[in-house]
This record gives sequence, C-alpha cells and structure tokens, in this order.
Amino acid sequence: MEYLFSERVKSLKPSAIREILKNSSAPGVIPLSAGNPAPDAFPYGDIQELSQSLLTDTPVEALQYSVTEGYAPLRQHLKDYMAQKHQAGTDNDQVLITSGAQQVMDLLTKTLLNEGDTVLCEAPSFIGSLNTFRSYRAKLCGIPMEPDGVRIEGLERALKTEKRIKYFYTIPNFQNPSGITMSLEKRRKVYELCRDHNVLILEDNPYGDLRFAGEDLPSIKSLDQEGVVMYAGSFSKVVSPGMRVGYALGPQEVIQKMVVCKQGEDVHSNIWAQIVCHRFMTERDYEAHLGRLRDIYRRKSTVLTQAMEEHFRPLIRWNPFEGGLFAWCTLPEPIHMLDYVKEAASRKVCVVPGTAFLTDESEACQSFRINFSTPTDEQLQEGVRLLGELAREMA
Amino acid sequence: MEYLFSERVKSLKPSAIREILKNSSAPGVIPLSAGNPAPDAFPYGDIQELSQSLLTDTPVEALQYSVTEGYAPLRQHLKDYMAQKHQAGTDNDQVLITSGAQQVMDLLTKTLLNEGDTVLCEAPSFIGSLNTFRSYRAKLCGIPMEPDGVRIEGLERALKTEKRIKYFYTIPNFQNPSGITMSLEKRRKVYELCRDHNVLILEDNPYGDLRFAGEDLPSIKSLDQEGVVMYAGSFSKVVSPGMRVGYALGPQEVIQKMVVCKQGEDVHSNIWAQIVCHRFMTERDYEAHLGRLRDIYRRKSTVLTQAMEEHFRPLIRWNPFEGGLFAWCTLPEPIHMLDYVKEAASRKVCVVPGTAFLTDESEACQSFRINFSTPTDEQLQEGVRLLGELAREMA
Repeated sequence: MEYLFSERVKSLKPSAIREILKNSSAPGVIPLSAGNPAPDAFPYGDIQELSQSLLTDTPVEALQYSVTEGYAPLRQHLKDYMAQKHQAGTDNDQVLITSGAQQVMDLLTKTLLNEGDTVLCEAPSFIGSLNTFRSYRAKLCGIPMEPDGVRIEGLERALKTEKRIKYFYTIPNFQNPSGITMSLEKRRKVYELCRDHNVLILEDNPYGDLRFAGEDLPSIKSLDQEGVVMYAGSFSKVVSPGMRVGYALGPQEVIQKMVVCKQGEDVHSNIWAQIVCHRFMTERDYEAHLGRLRDIYRRKSTVLTQAMEEHFRPLIRWNPFEGGLFAWCTLPEPIHMLDYVKEAASRKVCVVPGTAFLTDESEACQSFRINFSTPTDEQLQEGVRLLGELAREMA
Repeated sequence: MEYLFSERVKSLKPSAIREILKNSSAPGVIPLSAGNPAPDAFPYGDIQELSQSLLTDTPVEALQYSVTEGYAPLRQHLKDYMAQKHQAGTDNDQVLITSGAQQVMDLLTKTLLNEGDTVLCEAPSFIGSLNTFRSYRAKLCGIPMEPDGVRIEGLERALKTEKRIKYFYTIPNFQNPSGITMSLEKRRKVYELCRDHNVLILEDNPYGDLRFAGEDLPSIKSLDQEGVVMYAGSFSKVVSPGMRVGYALGPQEVIQKMVVCKQGEDVHSNIWAQIVCHRFMTERDYEAHLGRLRDIYRRKSTVLTQAMEEHFRPLIRWNPFEGGLFAWCTLPEPIHMLDYVKEAASRKVCVVPGTAFLTDESEACQSFRINFSTPTDEQLQEGVRLLGELAREMA
C-alpha cells in the first residue's frame, strides 16, 4: 500500500526541536521546557466533589450526547463573567465551548482561511498555534516584539503590504514565550489598525488570570464594539488542562460557522468536564481560587528570578514578566544558541530553543524559554545554576 | 466589519432537513429522529465509582496535560482487545485515541484529502461523516446499497473511473441509516478491490457490539494484512457519548500523520474519560455489560418491529436489521416522502427524511429513518401508529 497524503500534511515537517527535546521526560532530567500548570494548582478536592455530585444528581446530562455549542449554563455564565469582570462582549457576541483553547485557533482558521491566506502573528509566538495555522497552509507573517508588545509600525506595514490577511494572532498577557504584556496604548492602536483594515484579531488569553505583579490591563476584546475580536479563553491553566475545556467569545456570524466546523470535528466537547467547570465557577469561590493560583506562581517565579539573579548575571539577560508560566532568556552573541541548548540537554537541563517560536525556524535567535510552573524549586535552582555555568564556559 | 469566510465554509449550505427537524425536541413531540443511546444503557454506577476512585488515586494523571496519541494503557488494551476479540490489527498498526469516532473521520480526511479529491461512500450513508468530508471539500461519490451491502459492480466502476480517490467509507454493521449489514463475501471483495486500486478503506463500526440477532461477521480490518484499512471504533454507543472517546486502529504511517493533525486540533482528548473507559474495560465485566446492552436494544427493536407489523403493512416497507439503533422505512411511490415527513412533524412525530443521507440531497428518495433507542416504548408505539395512519391518508 502506498499512502498518498494531503499537501497540508506533507508540508508539516518534523521539527529539529523535537529531536533536542525528545529526552526531556527521561529520569534525572530537569524539565524547564514544559508548559504544564503546577500540579498543586489543581483544585482536586473541589473537582472530586463536583464530579461525584453531578454523576449522582444528573447522570444522563453528564453522559448523553450534548449540543455542539456547549453546555448552555456554562456559555451563559461565561458571557456574563466576561461582561462583568472584563467589560468584554456585546449583544452580537456569542460563546462557543471548545475542546481546549487550541480548538479555537483551529476552528477560526478553518472558518476563515483558504490555503495561502496570510496570518499575522507576534514574533516569537506560541508554537502550538503556529502549527495549527500551518496545518491549514497559512502564510505566517511575524511582527517583531518590543518590551510593551508588538511593534506597531511593523503591524501597520504588514497590514498595508501583505495580501489576503485573515487575522492577527496575539497573546497580549505574559505572552508565550516572551513573557511580554502589551500596553494599553498598544492594545488600542492594534484594535484600531486591524478594524480599519477589516482584519480580525484573535486574542488568546490563557494566562490572563495568572498575574502575580503589576495591574490588570483591559483585554482587546473589551475595546471591541464592532465585531473585530475573537477572544479565546481556557480552563487549562486555572482548573485543569486534562479536561480540555476552552471557549471562544466573538461575533455570532463567525461563531456560527465555527459551530458547523466543530460539529464535523468532534460533535461537542466532553460534557462532564463542561459541567464541572460550570459548577466550579458558580458553586465555589472562583476568585479566591484564582488568588491562590497567583500566590503559587508568584512564589515559583521568585524562586526562578532569584536563581537567575545569582547565576545568569551578567551574561544571560531575561525579559521582565508579571505573570504567566515562562521566562524568556537571551544569550550574548558569542554563544551559539542551538549548540548551547543541545549541550544543556546533554547535561540534563531541558529548555526550549527560541527558534521553535519563530515563523521560520531557520532564522537567527539568541533566546531560549524557561518554564517555572512544572519543575520543583530544587529543579529550578539546580537547572538555572547549570545553565549559568554552561554560559560562562561557552562565552 | 465584513467577514471573509473560507471557501470550505462557504460551501457548507444550511440543510433543508434542519428546518424540518428543528422542533424535534419541543415538548409533546415524539422523537424518532435522534440517534442517542437509550439512557438506561449507560453504566452509571460503574462510571461514578471508577471516576471517584481515579480522581482520588491518581488525580494528577486525570487532570494534567497528556499525550496526543492517547492514554497509553487504553491504547495498549484496545490493540490487544481488537486482536483477541476481532483478530484485527497487525504489528504495523497503531491505536490513536480520538474525541469521539467523528474525529477519526476528520483526522483521516485532513491527513489524506486535498480539495476536490474523491471519497467513495455508501448511498445512503451517515450524514455526520458526509458533512465532515464535505468540510474538506471532498467530491463525494455514493455507491448504491443492496440488502447484503454496497453494490460491488458500482464500487468497481467507481474505482476505475473516478479520479483522485482517497478512501472508501463504509459502516459494515447495521449501517446508519439503512440498517444493512455487509456480507462476509462482500467484505472480502471490497477489501480486495480497494487494495488492488491502492485506495484506503475507512471502516466505521460504532454499532458492531449492538448485534441482537444473527451471527457476528469478521470486520474488514480483520482481513487486512497490507495496511489498507483504517478502523474507527467508539465508546459512544457502549459506554457514553458525552465522554467523547473514540479510537482509530490503522497503519502507523497514517496514524502518525493523524497524531500531528490532532495536536493542532485539540492537543489530546479529555484524559479523565480515557481513564474511565480503560478502567471500565479492565476492572468491570465488559462482555457482560455488552450483553446487557444487546438485551436492551433487542427488546426496544421488538417493540418497534411489532408496531411496524401492525401499522405499516402493507404500505410501508422496512429493511430487516439485526442490530444498531435504526430502521430504514420506504414509502410507496404515490406518496411524496418530504411532504410526508413534514406532515408527520406537524403531527408531532419526527423522523429523518432519507435525502439527508445522500451525497446529493436533491436526489429522489422514498425512505425515512426511525430511531428506536431514544424514544420510550409508548412513544415508539404511538409514533408508528401515527406514521401508518398518515401513510394511509396520503396513499
């Protein structure tokens, strides 16, 4: 049998980075390359109780087929929650529950993109989303990042010169991988520019609730009265990623097409998990839970920062970050970043090379990403010590 | 804001059938149009117990990110189960856990199909799968059904004359909607023909365990030593559809591409549900459970058959069926099927017009589908009585 694959699948090349990271879960390895929430961040007891009661009280609802749009009480609650807490969403906006926020990226792309259409994104950006866009044969156009968010002149130039642009993909809060938060001024400017060019904004906000320093900024969606923004939210970082519950909030014209696409992909998302999330938000003290998560990540980030202060200075620099799960570190010029990351892996410290997050992996990049939510305190301290030692050796 | 949708989404037209069925869940309506498993078929108590114990014993495993391929013990168990119970699968085959079997259809199509490529299917066939194929802009080519399965001459002609065929989609057991089971002789012939034309077979088997009469037949996958068959299985009809757990068993070259596509769609399927399914298969008497399901559906099908014997003869004929959830009924020529279904709906009996299951909804069709798993006994009896009465009026 000779297998004839689609062009879209043939174009997905195996990544050089996978090769570097393939041993990251081996015993003895210090995993600074992952992106998992801290295991002690899950509300185990609450999920157990809520799960048990819903499987006892309403077992048919929790196990039978459900509607593609998602569990109606959860959709309504999220719509209200986004309006009250974030002043986001209009009467024309609807909520769609998805199988993790990854499916928002997938469904919006399926709904909007023809092969060869352009997606604007931040450079660097989240590799998982970039790969989703690639799987629809998008042309990716990366706009460089600055300390306060995407470079506006770069975005403006791209909007003027690129052809068939369907949307601009952004993670405005504690961006993965750079840790950068977009300023309010830039949020306004991004919104206006995209609206004026009739280009949608895909605002991905998985980490927004994990701010452990500074002040919350309004979402881009909260500026949107004209149906420009598709907002992607997720329970992965605040309740449990294994449940796979995310959501989209956006203009109903687009949401309704995404519903048709979702029906063909998985009919609906696991309904038990949707009900657990709804009950967790409405029957528990959700804001207190978010406060507890921020405490966990504030503490972990301090462990990392103190270790970096001690072992990285002055050779390795890092972006300041006020939330999220990642630190973005940059090596001085004489050190070859990929060689450095490979050598670190051989010394059993795994970090992700920055090139993984570029629209073109072959571009030059001096940065790498450290995750501080998955490793233990001891792993963070020892890993950073070894990384600092290696940089001094290679400098 | 003007929304510019993709060609694939623009080509998905709203179905005339939705309009007919939109009131099927209104109060007082007899729902013979659904496809839900009988609510008393769910193993509630077992799921409650298994869920509670796994959320207590291994909460991190049940709530943390997991691998795209699926929960390793479930993959291994399904591989062994398919080998032992069905003599299906070779050393080169792998199992991928999906978000319901619908995602097998989606991922295989994404992996193989370029826009305009051809998918061969049975005519009629399952509307959900056809819509998935359509969402990738497949050219659908329907092969007529006979009482013992797809017409071999039709399949042979299509294999010779159609261009760029990527796979043949079949539901060999108690097909949805026709209820037809493919004979062993035809399974062999279909396998050989597709193999000789280098065309994959997508064997969808959601109802195989729900045989309540006659003898089990070998799956097409059990004939496959050459990597021709992608088999789709599901827990939706035997454990719970709301959990969204299905699986693919097929050649690893294809499965590995499907894994990459799945990563971009939803990262992985809900892991709680995967572990519940694994524990249910290994810690409970799974075969006894399947026996209980067969008893439930045997009884429900007898209620339907007795009502049809009483109220349909001699005007309305139906295909014999030995399992599954559906009866396929055919009206005599003078009655216009769509008018009949519309009038039945206005009398509060909902059935699905046969045209819904055709590759071209505008083709002539005298049949409609009745589901017997969702309605109560009383609804079945009263619904069939009203349908028989209406046929006599319209004849």
